[in-house]
Amino acid sequence: MKATVIHGPGDIRFEEVPDPRIEAPTDAVVKVHTSCICGSDLWPYRGEDAVAEPRTIGHECLGIVEEVGADVTSFAPGDFVVVPFDHCDNTCPACRLGVQSACVNYGVTRSGQAEYARVTQAEGSLVKIDGAPDADLIPALMSLSDVMATGWHAAVASGVHEGGTAVVVGDGAVGLCGVLAARELGAETIIAMSRHQPRQDLARRFGATHIVAERGREGVAAVKEILGGIGAESTLECVGNGPAFEQAFRVTRPGGTVGFVGVPHGVEAPVEVMFRKNIGLRGGVAPVRRYLPDLLDRVLSRRLDPGPIFDLTLPLDRVADGYRAMDERTAIKVLLQP
Amino acid sequence: MKATVIHGPGDIRFEEVPDPRIEAPTDAVVKVHTSCICGSDLWPYRGEDAVAEPRTIGHECLGIVEEVGADVTSFAPGDFVVVPFDHCDNTCPACRLGVQSACVNYGVTRSGQAEYARVTQAEGSLVKIDGAPDADLIPALMSLSDVMATGWHAAVASGVHEGGTAVVVGDGAVGLCGVLAARELGAETIIAMSRHQPRQDLARRFGATHIVAERGREGVAAVKEILGGIGAESTLECVGNGPAFEQAFRVTRPGGTVGFVGVPHGVEAPVEVMFRKNIGLRGGVAPVRRYLPDLLDRVLSRRLDPGPIFDLTLPLDRVADGYRAMDERTAIKVLLQP
Repeated sequence: MKATVIHGPGDIRFEEVPDPRIEAPTDAVVKVHTSCICGSDLWPYRGEDAVAEPRTIGHECLGIVEEVGADVTSFAPGDFVVVPFDHCDNTCPACRLGVQSACVNYGVTRSGQAEYARVTQAEGSLVKIDGAPDADLIPALMSLSDVMATGWHAAVASGVHEGGTAVVVGDGAVGLCGVLAARELGAETIIAMSRHQPRQDLARRFGATHIVAERGREGVAAVKEILGGIGAESTLECVGNGPAFEQAFRVTRPGGTVGFVGVPHGVEAPVEVMFRKNIGLRGGVAPVRRYLPDLLDRVLSRRLDPGPIFDLTLPLDRVADGYRAMDERTAIKVLLQP
Repeated sequence: MKATVIHGPGDIRFEEVPDPRIEAPTDAVVKVHTSCICGSDLWPYRGEDAVAEPRTIGHECLGIVEEVGADVTSFAPGDFVVVPFDHCDNTCPACRLGVQSACVNYGVTRSGQAEYARVTQAEGSLVKIDGAPDADLIPALMSLSDVMATGWHAAVASGVHEGGTAVVVGDGAVGLCGVLAARELGAETIIAMSRHQPRQDLARRFGATHIVAERGREGVAAVKEILGGIGAESTLECVGNGPAFEQAFRVTRPGGTVGFVGVPHGVEAPVEVMFRKNIGLRGGVAPVRRYLPDLLDRVLSRRLDPGPIFDLTLPLDRVADGYRAMDERTAIKVLLQP
């Protein structure tokens, strides 16, 4: 099949690789219907994660089941499915506790930006959509594979609740989905920290009540002014680097919580600040499968529409242009279709 | 007055210092009735915190109000009071959120192990006991100034709840109070990690359902065996050093929470483990005043008795012997009376 392969920093190629196949009775192979590029794909693209040897890349997709292993009984070829980027059996103790992202049989989609992808633990991971979804819902459905569920996780982990206050650090697709999640979970004040006009506009459309463009000390002061001199109860850290982490803790009120979902890169938790101000830290890899049925309901009923995070759609064979656009921040998130 | 003064590592003297006096209208001066030595007093005693110059030490006491400033209207000379080690106005935004330990007018008792102590923010901090308490309740009441409230905070921060599972790391007085708190908050399984027979016995008496004497890898394996192969939902970190922190995270299940109350010394949060396993970290300086009325009710009604953590009582002028006993771990916690 044709697949996206990363050869090294900045070197994305769409080329021939071996077809994925059923390797275990718990596997399924899915024909990719729609895929996309994740902010975390930019880590190796930018050389911030090592690329030891060429490998397929892309962990988000919607697809049509092509083939299933012997243990997969709830899905059959032809089913339209959302593929959570993190695969789980949905039965182990961690899964039963709602932490499917720490499943004992954890797996990840390895060739989402390709013609086919293998899903390990298909029975526990996949969620079927009856019939073929309306075409205009595809972007929103696509977001459920990772980014919307991850933004949701940031909101849940940071304790967003009806009437609460939330600050979102990071105006990438995850951060914008975090704004949407905070709105859905009832936060009264939602501050998006963003310096980019189109992202600010989208944040407002998604429910941000305030935009803070300043960073550092000025950003902290601006947030506190909005929040009556004290920081936020819930801060959604949606980047994963040191400056974002620092910003997140500085805008959080005593007793508040930083919910972190950006894959940590060279990040340290400020344990002494946390101790002195009783600020909690919680989050991690989103247990997509846990949230998926609920999020799917919200999307199919057209109550929740994260679709606008995709501001560029490209044919799959132009995937390299998509990486470039996201790297240069000319696109928020790129949708890929065969 | 006579007060305990630390001159440097291992050098505790009971000597004459100036009397504390009302310095602000929000102050009170309390005649110390009972005091004690805290595990955290051992940090400077052991040279792990610097002692730049001789200073009075001791932050826990029960006392009788001697004098109040003009703004203190709820207390009068002669009142018997519990003095939270952390003083707060109990009205600022942080206090109203239940984080009195991050009060904008935060203060700390500086001469608890002395004849008199000054309480800043007396109106917000002190809690009165009507009449003179029964003598046998004094140790339990003494524990409310810090250690019992701190153990309670560890349990609350780590999310202990009815039917939950808890591991307590640290068998000092705070850890033992953490066991008691976990029992009061309804945990079904409470594992105390302790290698010392008398502390193990006390942990059992306080509600520990299991004792794990092993540390490191063996300790983790023993905890997991008790908890069905997975770690604890709530882990109470009651030490504050690196090995204890590491132990705490290793015995916590995916999605669980480490509640930390040991003053952090050279501690790092394992952000990547937290991310991968969705383990939360929350805690800090205990907001004693928040818990005090409830804890006082429990003690006065003789439902809660942390008193046995005091296994050595000394006259105040033998305070140096008390430090030595705690440093050598021949005493868990030392009560001091004039």
